Amino acid sequence: MVEKNIYTVKPLTREEREKKLGQRGKVIWFTGLSGAGKSTLGTLLENTLFEQGFIVQLFDGDNIRMGINKDLGYTLEDRRENLRRVAEINKLFLQSGIVTINCFIAPTEDLRHMVNGIIGASDMIEIFTDCPLEICEKRDIKGLYKMAREGKIKNFTGIDSPFEPPVQPHIHLRTDLYTPKQCLKIIMDLVLPAITLSHHNPHNIT
Amino acid sequence: MVEKNIYTVKPLTREEREKKLGQRGKVIWFTGLSGAGKSTLGTLLENTLFEQGFIVQLFDGDNIRMGINKDLGYTLEDRRENLRRVAEINKLFLQSGIVTINCFIAPTEDLRHMVNGIIGASDMIEIFTDCPLEICEKRDIKGLYKMAREGKIKNFTGIDSPFEPPVQPHIHLRTDLYTPKQCLKIIMDLVLPAITLSHHNPHNIT
Repeated sequence: MVEKNIYTVKPLTREEREKKLGQRGKVIWFTGLSGAGKSTLGTLLENTLFEQGFIVQLFDGDNIRMGINKDLGYTLEDRRENLRRVAEINKLFLQSGIVTINCFIAPTEDLRHMVNGIIGASDMIEIFTDCPLEICEKRDIKGLYKMAREGKIKNFTGIDSPFEPPVQPHIHLRTDLYTPKQCLKIIMDLVLPAITLSHHNPHNIT
Repeated sequence: MVEKNIYTVKPLTREEREKKLGQRGKVIWFTGLSGAGKSTLGTLLENTLFEQGFIVQLFDGDNIRMGINKDLGYTLEDRRENLRRVAEINKLFLQSGIVTINCFIAPTEDLRHMVNGIIGASDMIEIFTDCPLEICEKRDIKGLYKMAREGKIKNFTGIDSPFEPPVQPHIHLRTDLYTPKQCLKIIMDLVLPAITLSHHNPHNIT
């Protein structure tokens, strides 16, 4: 009988994991132009949630393009495959009950629709870091806009490749008008109730 | 000044995450023929570690081949790409401080060497679930051996595709000679000290 029970042990469910972690898994996705503040806000959010005891993981070009997607380039097809894989990886972390933060341009409605279809709309929070191109280009922290203007990078979003503003993001942030601290406050007000399990947060009124 | 501090917030390190979780990230990899007991032992291990409070995630064909790798088939090239991506996904979970359990045949030394190279030898525990082909074929839980013998599945490991036994696995289990419970005991004796942070386990003498 003992042996039989051991053989029929079941895979853990997402609900069991979330209960143990005391949090809901959720995919937070920052979209917007290069230089609009995705990584700044993503890293700030990751640190803040971590300090509050949440299990959280950020994905961006650094840990995705250098690892699992290093076989991909920047053609339309490769950008699509890049985001498809990112979405599937998010789904795995979601199954583990983890909160993920994604910092990827995801320039078109079509691409965002694909990501949404893989992850599931109810498990996603989409944040549009909206900043005028002129300001992003002026910031140009990585020098990418300069290279794109000089033709050294092709298909650069905002320069010679389109960016379609998200139609209905959960949060629309004008990052040129608000400080990171103000942006974080707006984000936390939506994210915190969404990832908190009610029995772990008696003050959560959502 | 406050704003400046916010802008310069750093990405979280693996060490910070592990400390918070009270565990060391580690990749546990079950290798062996279809039917040798990879999934049985993997699921059993996942449940046992979960009950003991570890954050753990199992990967197998069900959540990998149906998701991120559904674009891949079973040619040599695709099997290689399948395992390359699995290894890179493990690396992401490792960065999060999570213990992962993998149930994949990984039939050749060459493939296992590639996986090892991506993840890093010191972060891996390789478990060889060793069971004679005749017994695996007799079990044939999914009916795959029958289909392979009938030629309905091509390149099936053990039938018309080779399996090279691992040269130096951390654990070599004859799953036809030991019960799952006995196997689990052997595995836990090695895994538990490897994933336990010493300050959380005063009895850990490793």
